[in-house]
This record gives sequence, C-alpha cells and structure tokens, in this order.
Amino acid sequence: MVDIPDAHPRKDSLLARKKIVEASTDGLLAASAMIAHGRGEAFDYLLGEKTTDSARLAIREVAARLLDSDNPVISVNGNTVVLAGKELVRVATVLSCPIEVNLYYRTPERVSGLLALLEKQRHIVSKESGPEGFDGDWGKAVGEVGFLGEDPDYRIEGLEGPRSLCTEVGIGSADSILVPLEDGDRCQALVRLGKEVFVVDLNPLSRSSVGATVTIVDEISRASKLLLKETLRGSRQIADWDNSQALKDALSCMANSVRRN
Amino acid sequence: MVDIPDAHPRKDSLLARKKIVEASTDGLLAASAMIAHGRGEAFDYLLGEKTTDSARLAIREVAARLLDSDNPVISVNGNTVVLAGKELVRVATVLSCPIEVNLYYRTPERVSGLLALLEKQRHIVSKESGPEGFDGDWGKAVGEVGFLGEDPDYRIEGLEGPRSLCTEVGIGSADSILVPLEDGDRCQALVRLGKEVFVVDLNPLSRSSVGATVTIVDEISRASKLLLKETLRGSRQIADWDNSQALKDALSCMANSVRRN
Repeated sequence: MVDIPDAHPRKDSLLARKKIVEASTDGLLAASAMIAHGRGEAFDYLLGEKTTDSARLAIREVAARLLDSDNPVISVNGNTVVLAGKELVRVATVLSCPIEVNLYYRTPERVSGLLALLEKQRHIVSKESGPEGFDGDWGKAVGEVGFLGEDPDYRIEGLEGPRSLCTEVGIGSADSILVPLEDGDRCQALVRLGKEVFVVDLNPLSRSSVGATVTIVDEISRASKLLLKETLRGSRQIADWDNSQALKDALSCMANSVRRN
Repeated sequence: MVDIPDAHPRKDSLLARKKIVEASTDGLLAASAMIAHGRGEAFDYLLGEKTTDSARLAIREVAARLLDSDNPVISVNGNTVVLAGKELVRVATVLSCPIEVNLYYRTPERVSGLLALLEKQRHIVSKESGPEGFDGDWGKAVGEVGFLGEDPDYRIEGLEGPRSLCTEVGIGSADSILVPLEDGDRCQALVRLGKEVFVVDLNPLSRSSVGATVTIVDEISRASKLLLKETLRGSRQIADWDNSQALKDALSCMANSVRRN
C-alpha cells in the first residue's frame, strides 16, 4: 500500500487499514476479518472518526465496572490484537487481569501467532515508563499479565464447535469480560452465563451491541486509549446503566452525520 | 466459511461475501478489496439491502444514456467481475459494447485472471436462451462482446502510474463509461475528459459518487440485474439529471433506517 502523508485527514483510519492488510497477509486473521474491518470503517466514517460524548460515558462506566470486578478478563480476537494490542496490555496491567485470545474461527496457528504478537507488544510496553497515575513497578507489572488461550480446557455453555472453546482460569471463571469486536452468538451466551459483558463495536445495530451489558460504540484503538485513562483514575460508583440509550445516542449521531450532507 | 441456510434473511449479502473471500484467496483481488467490500456491506445494511426507488430512477437514466452513446464501455475491477460479471456480460451484449478490465492496483496476473474469469462467465451466459426483449442470435452476440485490458496502449489524462493505463479502443475513445466501484481520482479524471461517467457505489458520500454524471447508489449485482432489464426496453428520452438529488435521496433513506432503530 502507498505511504500516507501526515496531513491526510483520515490518516488514523488508513494506518489501521494498513495494519489489518499486513496482519492478514501474515496469516494472523480469518478470511473475513478484512470485511469486518471494512464494515467498521463505514460506521466510523458516519461517527466522524471520533469518540462521541456518549461513547466516553460508556468507556467510563466500563472502567468502573472492570475495577469493581473480582475476576475481570480481556478477550481478544485477531483484529483487536492488531489494532489495539499494546493499549490493552496497558489496561490489563492496570487491572491486573489476564488477556485471553479467543477466536470465532479458531486455528492453533492463529492462536499461537496472536499470542506471539502479544508477547512482542508486551516487550515494547514493558520498556515504557509507567503511565501517569500508576503506582508500582511498571515493567514488572506488565510482565505479570497472563496471556491465555493456547490450551483451552473449558467450553462456553450454549455454543457448539471450536468457537465455544476457552480457558477455565480466564473466560470460564470471569465475572466480567471486555470483548471488543465480539460475535453476536458468543456475546449472548456470555450474558446468559451471568457475566457482565462489555463490547466495543462500531455497529450500534449488531447483536453484540444490542446484547451487551455496556456497549462502547467506538473504534477499538481510540476506545482503548481512553479506557486506560479511566482505569488509572481508580474506582468509582457503578451507574444504573441504560444501554439502549447509549445505542440510540450512537444511531442519532450517525443519522445526523448522514443528514448534514 | 459455513454454509448459509436458504431462509437466512441476509443470504444474498452472505453469498456475496463468500464470493469475495474466495476470489481473494484465488489472488484475483487487491489486498484492500475485502475492506472495500465490507464498507459496502455496512452502507447496504443501512439501505435495507434493497434497491431504492431513487436508485431505480438512476438505473433507468443510465440505461437511456448508454443506449444513446456512440461508444459506451463497461469498465470493471475485481470486485465487479466477481459479484456481477455474468450480469454485465449480458448488459454488454445488449449494448454491443466492450468490457474493459481496469484496475487501480494493476498487476498483469490479476488482469489476466479476471479476463479468464470473464471468459468463463461468457461461456455460461452464451448457453442461456436470450433474455426477453432481445432480438437476434443470443449465443453469437454474447461471443462478440470484446474483453479489453490485457494490453493497455493509452493513458487517462491527469493520472499518474499504473492506474492511468487503459486501452485506446475501450476507455480511451469511449464517450460514456459505466464504472461500478470506481476510485474517486479516476472518476474525476474521466469526467474532466468530457466523458459521461456512470458509477455504482453504495457510499453516497464517496468522491466517485459525488463526481459522477449519474450515480446509482445500490449493490452492484442488484443494480446490474435491473440495468439489463432497462437496456432491453430500448431507447428513451435522456433526462435533465440532478445527481445531487439522487445522492440526497440515498442519504435520506440511510438516515431514516438509522432513526427507525
């Protein structure tokens, strides 16, 4: 792909696309991952490629609930690791929670490849000075984040086949899960198991968005950056969250963007 | 990818996705073709995955103008051949016009691969009984459609590099061009050359959509089927076409679809 000039108004979007194309060429992504990314691009275009006020509130709420959980876990697929892996390693460090690679189209090769990429990202993050607001030895804490998913020993009830596989210590025993870019069936199955499910999805009409406990309608790398900031602020009150209002806000923003033209 | 049940409400969309994934695996498409397809899926989702009344008017107008042209040509890229190749071979047969493979990310391998796929599609179409409204020997007429693009001998003025390449007998000397899924720069360059440019694009905000003479905001395989019907009806009056109204109609339909939820 061609180089993207710094001044390009859609530079972030084009860089994200470049990462996805490269990861796909490297065999890290399922065949339809690029199509999913393209769908996300279109919805983000309608959001103006920026985080809405409503999404900010959702991010704050997710941070509060993750901090309040006994066993939170961050479940990641290929696109998430490629687009926001480093940022989520930072979030997992602040939360002292594991990251589990959990794929809809699971193959051992892709799981290992993504875990290897996470290890590379961890190495880079561990060399940074800790973020403002973090107390303790950053490098050590980053090193202690558990990466799960290589050896699934548990099944998500209500799902069949490879997409039900997970680890008992991770998703199996979690009381809250951050699952960016999740498949609708799995999102619903996790909610049915009584877990709090936090989704990041650019399509406010997707079954994941509709079924989640809290939905962040935002691009995953932007949302992860803000989520890190919010988790660093520490615990706060859990709200009586109206998720359908959050989805309506996103739809209304998209409708206005379309009407403006 | 999994089999799609007949009753699935989004079967057409999922079948189209399957075709694009397979063609990509076969090396027929550029790296970002799947991302472009995914963007289209999102916009089509907002259109309700059906042809709007406004798009029908645009299809009718494009048929009238193609029939009125001295040298029409149909310019196709990879996604277009994969999704609507057979339908466009039928349209080209009715119009007695050539089809030119013209790629933004041109490689000799992809051009040859797509021309070979078009030949396969031509073979299938030539065995059909001709469509209602067609006078003459269908098989013979299908066999006479020219497939161009293998040996470019002309450049589109105002563009640089491989994406400017085309054939003189095709795009070079055409007075009107149907260019589904075109790149914005090339659409503008063709318009500047004084040609009538007819675009099929699901994004009413794209530079191609905005720059075209007539824009059909619709999915390419649906639009091609209707275009065939309209060309079979024969010549009619050219309208004083207000393309910005057509784009506003599409945006308004999308905004309503978003608001309904």
